[in-house]
Amino acid sequence: MEESARLQSGLDRIVFFSDAVFAIAITLLAIDLRLPSGLSDAELTKALRELLPDIEAFVLSFAVVGVFWIAHHRMWRSITRWNQQLLLLNLSMLLVVAFVPFPTSMLGEYGDTVAATALYSGTVLLLGLMSAAIWWYASWNGRLVDPGLPPAQVRAMRASGMVAPIVFGIALAAAFVTPLVSQFLWWSAFLARPVVARITVRRSAPRRC
Amino acid sequence: MEESARLQSGLDRIVFFSDAVFAIAITLLAIDLRLPSGLSDAELTKALRELLPDIEAFVLSFAVVGVFWIAHHRMWRSITRWNQQLLLLNLSMLLVVAFVPFPTSMLGEYGDTVAATALYSGTVLLLGLMSAAIWWYASWNGRLVDPGLPPAQVRAMRASGMVAPIVFGIALAAAFVTPLVSQFLWWSAFLARPVVARITVRRSAPRRC
Amino acid sequence: MEESARLQSGLDRIVFFSDAVFAIAITLLAIDLRLPSGLSDAELTKALRELLPDIEAFVLSFAVVGVFWIAHHRMWRSITRWNQQLLLLNLSMLLVVAFVPFPTSMLGEYGDTVAATALYSGTVLLLGLMSAAIWWYASWNGRLVDPGLPPAQVRAMRASGMVAPIVFGIALAAAFVTPLVSQFLWWSAFLARPVVARITVRRSAPRRC
Amino acid sequence: MEESARLQSGLDRIVFFSDAVFAIAITLLAIDLRLPSGLSDAELTKALRELLPDIEAFVLSFAVVGVFWIAHHRMWRSITRWNQQLLLLNLSMLLVVAFVPFPTSMLGEYGDTVAATALYSGTVLLLGLMSAAIWWYASWNGRLVDPGLPPAQVRAMRASGMVAPIVFGIALAAAFVTPLVSQFLWWSAFLARPVVARITVRRSAPRRC
Repeated sequence: MEESARLQSGLDRIVFFSDAVFAIAITLLAIDLRLPSGLSDAELTKALRELLPDIEAFVLSFAVVGVFWIAHHRMWRSITRWNQQLLLLNLSMLLVVAFVPFPTSMLGEYGDTVAATALYSGTVLLLGLMSAAIWWYASWNGRLVDPGLPPAQVRAMRASGMVAPIVFGIALAAAFVTPLVSQFLWWSAFLARPVVARITVRRSAPRRC
Repeated sequence: MEESARLQSGLDRIVFFSDAVFAIAITLLAIDLRLPSGLSDAELTKALRELLPDIEAFVLSFAVVGVFWIAHHRMWRSITRWNQQLLLLNLSMLLVVAFVPFPTSMLGEYGDTVAATALYSGTVLLLGLMSAAIWWYASWNGRLVDPGLPPAQVRAMRASGMVAPIVFGIALAAAFVTPLVSQFLWWSAFLARPVVARITVRRSAPRRC
Repeated sequence: MEESARLQSGLDRIVFFSDAVFAIAITLLAIDLRLPSGLSDAELTKALRELLPDIEAFVLSFAVVGVFWIAHHRMWRSITRWNQQLLLLNLSMLLVVAFVPFPTSMLGEYGDTVAATALYSGTVLLLGLMSAAIWWYASWNGRLVDPGLPPAQVRAMRASGMVAPIVFGIALAAAFVTPLVSQFLWWSAFLARPVVARITVRRSAPRRC
Repeated sequence: MEESARLQSGLDRIVFFSDAVFAIAITLLAIDLRLPSGLSDAELTKALRELLPDIEAFVLSFAVVGVFWIAHHRMWRSITRWNQQLLLLNLSMLLVVAFVPFPTSMLGEYGDTVAATALYSGTVLLLGLMSAAIWWYASWNGRLVDPGLPPAQVRAMRASGMVAPIVFGIALAAAFVTPLVSQFLWWSAFLARPVVARITVRRSAPRRC
């Protein structure tokens, strides 16, 4: 195997390992959706209703992890080299990804509390910061990215990477005042992303998207 | 890496991520098959007998997820480009795939209830609709599929993608009348698929299958 | 993408999906190794001792799934085409792989009972039969295998695929007489494999192994 | 498919399967981070505080498995051939990887006991020995590695592979005297690695790292 193939294979394994952790974490989110056994019909209806916040937390976290996977996907298509530091940054981000099921389950159970809202906001804030750090580190002075990458795209991806940290940072602060505002901000983050993307990235042809 | 290789790599990661979610969800289906500890011989026999509906639900869901994985497999072999919309459609379908273990465990525990039968039918209906949506979106006016794909095959795959939504839609309605009829329809869906496939798709040589 | 590349990609996805299910099932085997919380020092020692059969069952099943993964690995290196039937055979085998954690956990808890021993033997027997069926189907009249594959290797792989079904078939029968003999047979299966391999397959160079 | 492509595909599957087991085990580490339901605000705060050792154990084990994944990653980029023995060594190492969640959960629950500290140290010691054994076996007389690999790099990787076994071997002995010293050694292992790496491996350019 020549050098470039070996290098490619190193990159592939990092991307593959990351994808696997994302996929496992996102699928494990649903593992807490379980009903106790032996319920009567009336109790079953009640138990299902009490499970709704858990299902909402599952959908929210699926969207969160999914969005960060898409961002990871986009970054690593432009990253063409890697070093030990990038590997460690990437592993640290995956640690937060693997951690997400815990604040998710806490949110389903204790969604109205300051603790659950703050922990959830803080976890996604950290995930956003780690994800942004990967891109800033890799793209700084073109350190590890494709030399042909247009500077405008590098800047656009930096801007779009700041959306989640800003929204979830505000949400973290808001959690201590009122959890409801915090949770409203989470869902708005998903609306904010495409808007920012539309402003900063030029419209792309289907093949480039 | 040249443009076409990069594009291919983007497609590969989507397919890979999807495969991983399918594989994890299908394997997690068996995680609820557990016996309480410390049973006597007589209790053990009883506990095993009570586990039979859970095992049946596991086999059914394994077949359901497996069939949708095969369908995904077939669609993405013809999809040669992708865009943000297709990515989101695919992620939404994977959300339903990751959700399947919950109605499965409910079915094992409360298989004779309207709630369990309706939730199960509804989940697979949604999964079928999402799966069909991916193909309609990608193949509409040849948007993202291989230009050389015969129109007859596009149509055949659209038709075959409608089998599960129709059967499970009827099963959802039937669930409110009588769960037994609903469950009979589920199993018949697996018999219906090859029949429809035989009618709409011309017999294929082993290499093309 | 030309036809042969597309075909290869189809094969790759099947192999990849199978690997993922094997990897998830083999890693989930350890998920039941947990201690209750809040034990005193004396109780902790006792609880650890009571966990030994579970650890033994984990190691045994890891070896069983590992051996079948190696066999799968070897078969699919020689399989160069696929059809719907092979896909279904492979999925059916994966269903048994995903099921293995259940008899494993039962074995750890109820290892001395006829039920646990018989279920475990029966599951591995089924896994062995499914695995052998894949190879017989694919290699029958060279249906889906590499045309250049030496007939002696096809036969050797058929013979080696019969070891597990025979041993675990006998173990299943023995389970009803005495579980201890059955369990002795399981471990001996791992010794029998290399012996049979040595008899039927000519010694292979490191690169070919 | 020609011989070299087939051989490469065999290697790829081993590496892929290993990556998947690493990824699943590392993500499952967080699965025990759960709170009981129905707690009051005061109890919730207390339960969260009691979860801190579990989170610490999760972070530690994530780092441990991550470091061994990086080491595996580095070794297999230099391994260009494989045989049955290497496959079995690799599977045995993966067995230990899959086992790691158990001592991790025990550490979170019983972190101050000799039993938990000794089991954790012993598990990582075993993991380190298995990992080192893979490299010694593959690199012995250049048995299965890239012939162009500089002998200095082979030796450097052998030396760096001894760090974990030595530190965790001492930690295992220390566990029986005082668990606190043992735990201090674990964290210091992560500081020791880069130091040893700096001494034994010449500084590498970003592409080679």
